[in-house]
Amino acid sequence: MVKANDNYLKLPGSYLFSTIGKKVREYSAANPDAKIIRLGIGDVTQPLAPAIIDALHGAVDEMAARETFKGYAPDLGYEFLRNAIADNDYKARGCDITADEIFVSDGAKCDCSNIQEIFSLDNKIAVCDPVYPVYVDSNVMAGRTGTYDAKTETWSDVIYMPCTAENNFAPELPKETPDLIYLCFPNNPTGSTITKAQLQEWVDYANKVGAIILYDAAYEAYISEADVPHSIYECEGARTCAIELRSFSKNAGFTGVRLGFTVIPKELKAGDVNLHALWARRHGTKYNGAPYIIQKAGEAVYSEAGKAQLKQQVAYYMNNAKYIYDGLKSAGFTVSGGVNAPYIWLKAPNNMTSWEFFDYLLTNVNVVGTPGSGFGPSGEHYFRLTAFGTYENTVEAVDRIKKINL
Amino acid sequence: MVKANDNYLKLPGSYLFSTIGKKVREYSAANPDAKIIRLGIGDVTQPLAPAIIDALHGAVDEMAARETFKGYAPDLGYEFLRNAIADNDYKARGCDITADEIFVSDGAKCDCSNIQEIFSLDNKIAVCDPVYPVYVDSNVMAGRTGTYDAKTETWSDVIYMPCTAENNFAPELPKETPDLIYLCFPNNPTGSTITKAQLQEWVDYANKVGAIILYDAAYEAYISEADVPHSIYECEGARTCAIELRSFSKNAGFTGVRLGFTVIPKELKAGDVNLHALWARRHGTKYNGAPYIIQKAGEAVYSEAGKAQLKQQVAYYMNNAKYIYDGLKSAGFTVSGGVNAPYIWLKAPNNMTSWEFFDYLLTNVNVVGTPGSGFGPSGEHYFRLTAFGTYENTVEAVDRIKKINL
Repeated sequence: MVKANDNYLKLPGSYLFSTIGKKVREYSAANPDAKIIRLGIGDVTQPLAPAIIDALHGAVDEMAARETFKGYAPDLGYEFLRNAIADNDYKARGCDITADEIFVSDGAKCDCSNIQEIFSLDNKIAVCDPVYPVYVDSNVMAGRTGTYDAKTETWSDVIYMPCTAENNFAPELPKETPDLIYLCFPNNPTGSTITKAQLQEWVDYANKVGAIILYDAAYEAYISEADVPHSIYECEGARTCAIELRSFSKNAGFTGVRLGFTVIPKELKAGDVNLHALWARRHGTKYNGAPYIIQKAGEAVYSEAGKAQLKQQVAYYMNNAKYIYDGLKSAGFTVSGGVNAPYIWLKAPNNMTSWEFFDYLLTNVNVVGTPGSGFGPSGEHYFRLTAFGTYENTVEAVDRIKKINL
Repeated sequence: MVKANDNYLKLPGSYLFSTIGKKVREYSAANPDAKIIRLGIGDVTQPLAPAIIDALHGAVDEMAARETFKGYAPDLGYEFLRNAIADNDYKARGCDITADEIFVSDGAKCDCSNIQEIFSLDNKIAVCDPVYPVYVDSNVMAGRTGTYDAKTETWSDVIYMPCTAENNFAPELPKETPDLIYLCFPNNPTGSTITKAQLQEWVDYANKVGAIILYDAAYEAYISEADVPHSIYECEGARTCAIELRSFSKNAGFTGVRLGFTVIPKELKAGDVNLHALWARRHGTKYNGAPYIIQKAGEAVYSEAGKAQLKQQVAYYMNNAKYIYDGLKSAGFTVSGGVNAPYIWLKAPNNMTSWEFFDYLLTNVNVVGTPGSGFGPSGEHYFRLTAFGTYENTVEAVDRIKKINL
């Protein structure tokens, strides 16, 4: 008799963003005239840059002729894209990463939920708290997290690393030794960053205890300060302890285009086992490559025109971030993030819980954000706003929030 | 200390098509003048149909303007595509499947390797022998298949259902009761089919023993005979025992475009657990939707122009299939398949093994096919040729094979 995967049943409630979507739909239905501004989900709003549009049209034309038509892509990605990534994201920053260490995929969400699969179920994970829910949930589904305590909203076999105002939203080395360490900088949801010296401490620690760092650098394009690393491979020794996950969603507006990549250095091992070979095997067996058309769009991200256009696009969103940060700060809110990241991390006023503040903003000023508690217990009383809206909506949302009388 | 997933290490050798690729590359390097014809991997060669090209260009233009730009897609697929699938692939065939039972993905390979994840590791799988390697390998990686016997090339905890000339390459109901039954018709690799009455027996059996059928119908567009079912939901009772996996790769030439879907009826359960909800949760947590551009291309597959153009494209490949089938049969080979499927299943002459015949064809006539033994022990002494080449190459390959003196 067939049985379901019980681990799935352990997941509490529904995914954070589904709950937000449901609440917003219900409010909209009851208040059809409300002009709701969404600064919740980190979805981009600016159109694709002209260089990317040109590349897409060109690739579509190639698919229309027998001579240039492309069938199955190479398992790990087209050489042209892997070379562009290696040159621009790594060699140009002095990182020793080669094209054949880059695995092209349809996005960082898939990669960061699938990567746990090449590790033993006995391995213990450490995550920041608050944290992007996918890291934990994908491990719950695999059966790696023990039992859930609804009161503390934590899993028995997960090591939580609180990121709070006290530690400037940068985690401290955990007391209990983990096997897999999820780090994301610039951070989602807090918008915080760590310096290269701080990241070096993590690399040294991982090498010392034999752990692997899963480094999510999806937001690196938003870094504006010099001492913040864009890649973990800027740190010495990272090749023996780190996997890096990258996305085109936020630097190039690809949330609906779907492209990302994972870097696994060839010498990276778990015990005697080479992890590059394992991930290659997973790609070969369970994946069929990102579409040729989309990989050509990815290549255009690294063209001279593409780079210039995307620099402007990132600047557009960071201008929004500055408007949110400055506006709310001047109105007396406690805010952080927003300098090297498109996220602003806001303390809910008057000791409101995150969901109370969510409901308050939705119903009083029709602004949607993301409750910090949805990212973990240490996110309680916090709230995430994103800079990915249009400038006009961002200004209006901030002005509405500033007017509330708390 | 971090540990790897040991299940990965149990996988014998490398993936079938990687080995073929390596052999062909080595032969090419040593014989640069050889004009190699590839009828091995089931990759298409005809360009995308004009209706699809138009849809792609149109969607790219939408991504270029703020008003029509699309960010994250709905988790389970855009309504326009799910509706087109429900109407054309199901309602038009009298199958009771609704749009919200359809999960759009980036292809059937991902779906058929990921689907096992929503089931218990205690579940026992049954597969045809020979079989598409991904069904078994994805279960090996999950740890569901026991130990491997290199001598028999079988796993201790997998139920094999031999498909041989004696049973006309149609599996018989297994003696041991499985929990999950993988079926693929029209079949890859044998090109065989079963009638609706035969499939109804499987549905009745699954409902009786409480098993779930994972029905891979990736090749349904190639069905030419009236009594061969296009969907398992043509059978009565399939809604309580079957998940169907479908692809756009072979009916629309999307091998490099990447689009597929999975159907899970809402009442389908494993014990008390609703499987539709479980798969939805997996999509929401570990996937971010197929690209908008690609989903618009999928919609065009169902337009009047698209349907007419793709009917011609399928006819082109089936003309190849007929040429291969007739040509090799007239030359004295034992052949099957090719009537409702783009695959011809060929007995290697003179009791050669599959790989011996592979090497013989590669080195003597520079034709690449797929060794049947790569699909399982009952595939030994067989060989798969695909109809997805160009007509010119297909004719030349067959003519070369006919001339060999065995």
